[in-house]
Amino acid sequence: MLERLSQISSHTRASAIPVAAHPLDPLSAAEIKAATAIVKAAYPDKVLAFNVVSLADPRKAEFLAWQADSEKAAKPAREVDIVALEAGVSGVWEGLVDLTVGKVNSWKLIAGVQPILTSEDLIKVELVIRKDPKVIEQCVISGVPADEMHKVYCDPWTIGYDERFGTERRLQQAIMFYRSDEDDSQYSHPLDFCPIFDTETGEIIAIDIPAVRRPLSKHKHANFHSKAVAELGGYRDSVKPIVVTQPEGVSFKMTGREIEWQNFKFHIGFNYREGIVLNNISYNDHGNVRPLFYRMSLAEMVVPYGNPDHPHHRKHAFDLGEYGGGYMTNSLALGCDCKGVIHYLDAVFPDRAGEPITIKNAICIHEEDDGVLFKHSDFRDSYATTILTRGVKLVVSQIFTAANYEYMVYWIFHMDGTIQLEIKLTGILNTYIMNDDEDARGFGTRVYPGVNAHNHQHLFSLRINPMIDGLENSVQMVDAVRDPNPVGSKENYYGNAFFPKATVFKTAGEAVTDYDGTTSRTWDMINPNKKHPYSGKPVSYKLVSREAAPLLPKEGSLVWKRAAFARHTIHVTPYVDRQFYPAGVYVPQTSGEPSMGLPEWIGDGSANVENTDVVLWHTFGITHFPAPEDFPIMPAEPMTLLLRPRNFFLQNPALDVPPSYVMTTSGARNAGASTVESLTDKVSRLAFSETAGSVCKCGNNCSGACGSSCECK
Amino acid sequence: MLERLSQISSHTRASAIPVAAHPLDPLSAAEIKAATAIVKAAYPDKVLAFNVVSLADPRKAEFLAWQADSEKAAKPAREVDIVALEAGVSGVWEGLVDLTVGKVNSWKLIAGVQPILTSEDLIKVELVIRKDPKVIEQCVISGVPADEMHKVYCDPWTIGYDERFGTERRLQQAIMFYRSDEDDSQYSHPLDFCPIFDTETGEIIAIDIPAVRRPLSKHKHANFHSKAVAELGGYRDSVKPIVVTQPEGVSFKMTGREIEWQNFKFHIGFNYREGIVLNNISYNDHGNVRPLFYRMSLAEMVVPYGNPDHPHHRKHAFDLGEYGGGYMTNSLALGCDCKGVIHYLDAVFPDRAGEPITIKNAICIHEEDDGVLFKHSDFRDSYATTILTRGVKLVVSQIFTAANYEYMVYWIFHMDGTIQLEIKLTGILNTYIMNDDEDARGFGTRVYPGVNAHNHQHLFSLRINPMIDGLENSVQMVDAVRDPNPVGSKENYYGNAFFPKATVFKTAGEAVTDYDGTTSRTWDMINPNKKHPYSGKPVSYKLVSREAAPLLPKEGSLVWKRAAFARHTIHVTPYVDRQFYPAGVYVPQTSGEPSMGLPEWIGDGSANVENTDVVLWHTFGITHFPAPEDFPIMPAEPMTLLLRPRNFFLQNPALDVPPSYVMTTSGARNAGASTVESLTDKVSRLAFSETAGSVCKCGNNCSGACGSSCECK
Repeated sequence: MLERLSQISSHTRASAIPVAAHPLDPLSAAEIKAATAIVKAAYPDKVLAFNVVSLADPRKAEFLAWQADSEKAAKPAREVDIVALEAGVSGVWEGLVDLTVGKVNSWKLIAGVQPILTSEDLIKVELVIRKDPKVIEQCVISGVPADEMHKVYCDPWTIGYDERFGTERRLQQAIMFYRSDEDDSQYSHPLDFCPIFDTETGEIIAIDIPAVRRPLSKHKHANFHSKAVAELGGYRDSVKPIVVTQPEGVSFKMTGREIEWQNFKFHIGFNYREGIVLNNISYNDHGNVRPLFYRMSLAEMVVPYGNPDHPHHRKHAFDLGEYGGGYMTNSLALGCDCKGVIHYLDAVFPDRAGEPITIKNAICIHEEDDGVLFKHSDFRDSYATTILTRGVKLVVSQIFTAANYEYMVYWIFHMDGTIQLEIKLTGILNTYIMNDDEDARGFGTRVYPGVNAHNHQHLFSLRINPMIDGLENSVQMVDAVRDPNPVGSKENYYGNAFFPKATVFKTAGEAVTDYDGTTSRTWDMINPNKKHPYSGKPVSYKLVSREAAPLLPKEGSLVWKRAAFARHTIHVTPYVDRQFYPAGVYVPQTSGEPSMGLPEWIGDGSANVENTDVVLWHTFGITHFPAPEDFPIMPAEPMTLLLRPRNFFLQNPALDVPPSYVMTTSGARNAGASTVESLTDKVSRLAFSETAGSVCKCGNNCSGACGSSCECK
Repeated sequence: MLERLSQISSHTRASAIPVAAHPLDPLSAAEIKAATAIVKAAYPDKVLAFNVVSLADPRKAEFLAWQADSEKAAKPAREVDIVALEAGVSGVWEGLVDLTVGKVNSWKLIAGVQPILTSEDLIKVELVIRKDPKVIEQCVISGVPADEMHKVYCDPWTIGYDERFGTERRLQQAIMFYRSDEDDSQYSHPLDFCPIFDTETGEIIAIDIPAVRRPLSKHKHANFHSKAVAELGGYRDSVKPIVVTQPEGVSFKMTGREIEWQNFKFHIGFNYREGIVLNNISYNDHGNVRPLFYRMSLAEMVVPYGNPDHPHHRKHAFDLGEYGGGYMTNSLALGCDCKGVIHYLDAVFPDRAGEPITIKNAICIHEEDDGVLFKHSDFRDSYATTILTRGVKLVVSQIFTAANYEYMVYWIFHMDGTIQLEIKLTGILNTYIMNDDEDARGFGTRVYPGVNAHNHQHLFSLRINPMIDGLENSVQMVDAVRDPNPVGSKENYYGNAFFPKATVFKTAGEAVTDYDGTTSRTWDMINPNKKHPYSGKPVSYKLVSREAAPLLPKEGSLVWKRAAFARHTIHVTPYVDRQFYPAGVYVPQTSGEPSMGLPEWIGDGSANVENTDVVLWHTFGITHFPAPEDFPIMPAEPMTLLLRPRNFFLQNPALDVPPSYVMTTSGARNAGASTVESLTDKVSRLAFSETAGSVCKCGNNCSGACGSSCECK
């Protein structure tokens, strides 16, 4: 069957079902068309609105078998997850389509759940509220003339959970704003009431009106566009351009969506929910291709707000589970989001009708200078004996917009084998109106007259399925501890003894742990079956993550119940195919009773997670107490974590990176000439000297330069 | 007098005392010559060895008065700290020379202390041990033939404190190694014994020999130079150059050692001990020059090792207080340590004879692209309405070598007003020999056959004298806490309430505090007399520092006693002129009884630190459990902290940075043309497409690109 289809598709681009280049590739436009066509054909009399049409990841065993021997082993079935709504039917249709055989493998109605909100769902709300008489009435009460409804805007938000409305209807809450001019930013002019919108019927079913009314702010709009900057005195002219070029092109190679860079090899997936998915990461260790991670992604996140007043408790968006980090992703552009020499990957999603939509340049792949990778100089000859090697890093990134906020996600690969996840928060604070005589009571900050920016957290769930030198892995918690023996004792006479205390998790229950700054706690993903030949310790990748703010909503609170994954820094579960979402598959309007996802899977905690195929779930993030500096648009706030090889490589894996400068002791004593062709870039120069000499002598070959005295005269 | 001198010096470069350009400038070569000449003339019959000849910082009141009105107020006296040794005399001569009047203002013998170790002091040791019969005897016992003493090397280390020898004599311990070839790295071949060297008499006064002997490793040397890499298969050829240019030059302006960059202005000092000192940092806030910090520097550090066996407890170097981050600083070079367009500053120090030595390019000043400074896109028109502004950062850096280790220190200024300190550790692990059948017992790691790398910490003391909008400042500790009211209560019905709990320190005693990860604890330097017009909160800079490993040597241990500053994350003291060194002025061979520096100053803790001129001392750093990946040379390990303006600026201070791309809603609807001249660099291009079209259309003006779909076809 597979053969037949591939032949067809090679002959013709007709309605035949296309065959994907790689089992982990996201669905192509043709595949989305094909999948929805198959569903429509199977259920001709249903009026379906497609919500999700996305690759169902190949089953791991099938994929690995195929990868191990693609001649003998069958290519994994190309399956498609379908989530669709039927007009007038509560709940969602959940289907699994097999593209390879062109049929619907399963099709069931899941009652009492709500699907993710798509861009189409979000965009509707504003159009409706502008026409709704009750909303208009409230606008007028707030001080917006009825003929200015075109200046009324709303950010459509998931409702979280509201006990009054439950889960039956598919709801959004409209966070209301006023924009005096279409080019202004509405966030300095919130309105004080909150309409509730039925996404399917398109009606406003309720309006939440606060006890204390707050009329529209009379203060001037705060904006960040050219007009506003002009009023500040215009743009500064003191910024000189920094130009990054790669005359010989990039150091990475793409084969479809598989990338090879500096011994790393992995596949770059992307889906509506997690956005970037890194699959099948391996490292070529001098010819030995060693698996590191089978799959890594941001699986969920929650943004709880800290103002207790109704209805602000509903502001705790699960940006991935309720909107989708893929659905909200930006199209990126050269020289803007990334600089240098770039390779982009597009994303394709279905619209409500099941037709494919392409987001161009959804993923940016590029390299950046990574500073000094390593350096050492010998004091014996006044630092003439020197090695200095600069690094380059590979960055795979996306940016998604969650109404007001932007999340910039950077997966960074370093030459020393470290994999770094950096997330930068920018965009605009979610704001609420406050009267001039009002006090934010510590639950928010007045960032501008009339504007209350509420305290909030950004908590992410990083899902890692390690494959450190094989499928059987364990996770150990490592604490830096003082030796128990007292000062003056034989074992610890001077009291300086300390060591790393490693605790290997045996069960999922034991693995539920939190960050401890007092022991600089880290967690290692280890292969207990493979010891390092020198250290005797198991090969591992260490998770170093310091931005591990605890969930601040209280135990028993709505957020605590719904975002169970965020209660702890670390969870470890046995690997299960297609078990991806730690707050559940259908997150919108869950009550948290029972808590979905991780608590369900962990159950009584008895499941073995030692020396088996495991998944590590890491909650990290920050608590944000807004300040006026974050307004009207927020400078990027960074957070980062590292996955570092420890006891994995025989030695520093970057030793063979060509140095910028290397001088041996004998070299320094004799010639004084560099002993390898220096890789120093040819263009670095002095800021306040134009003499060619200085550029040439130091810029070109850096002779006697690094570490020893640079003779730029 | 001052006038006369300046006239002279302007007429002639003769032996007249030169006048410094700026009161905060480090001593020039001429000033060092002049200062030592003045001392020699005053004490003609003393045989002095100069240890320190360094600027005595102007008294703050005098400096600020002069800065406020350099016409009326006198220029601060140009004073010089002198530390000198006299042959045969124990203790040090401590002098203060006034260059402006050309005389010695004070001169006293400090008994029972030892001065810092200079490069000259360190370099001696190896020459002596190679000739010492007892050392040769031990080398032979270890398996080094007597005729191979030229292959025996040692890293000269401060002895820390050894109760057997006390403080009377000026000692170093020789950490012994064997280098089979002068171009090899000795760190894979340590020797097991440790000679004790008298720096002044040049004798070996003792040799510490372990109970268990460990013969010289027969394993091959581990190295990182070209020859070793050749044996690995040579350098990889897959790294393509990344070229950074600034065709219009740099965005900063230098006036002597004062730098102006993107509204920041500060003076860059440098001394033998702290290395880079940032003085008098201010921000030009739309014409209003607002002071931020009077002085900021790394004031001390300690590197305790965790192996309890004698004599390894002596390995806890105070790299700044015992060697000097200035004395050990590297000379930097174009395209190696920094890339792009660079401005360097030299450093000048005295030799033992009092003659100046210049280290060229001691400080690197340059800019780097800083990624996305802020971005927002509007979902309403599919992200066509977009602003994207990229940032540039200013980096002031130095690298110093402490025998085996390299410390790379980066003071980074961001356009959003954030000041970042990043330190990267590289170089080579301190190693000790271990037998093949030996177990490191958790106190170290076998990183290579025969090589035990001991656990250690790198703990730094950051000294900050804030001047947030004036001299009267306070420090407050901020904890993210849950609202005390229970879930279901009127005040916290949904249980989601949380807020920042701020505790203002009243006394130095109260301010002794530690990092708490469970509350994401931060510390604000505030001006309690100046509230933000919007938020009503005091103007502040917030210290965000997550790498705050606690001191692991036990209470009562030698390190705990000597490095009292490292016992806690934060100390706050009232400002005192020239009170710079938290472990004491003379650190070498202190017993820690009593503990010097901070504990002396804090005393009973009753001193007021509220709404006055204060100094904040922040201990930060990491615990390092070595792994084979760190050997034979260690990839740079980063740690960082941020000083962020909070409630300081009226709004985002970077709003006027020209955007890379900005498109308003009306612009998108009408022309679709960028509404400002885009700053997008003209050279970014696609990795795998050579069509001029793609480069032009997106690269040149990014039209319709950022945030919306980029039409690169």
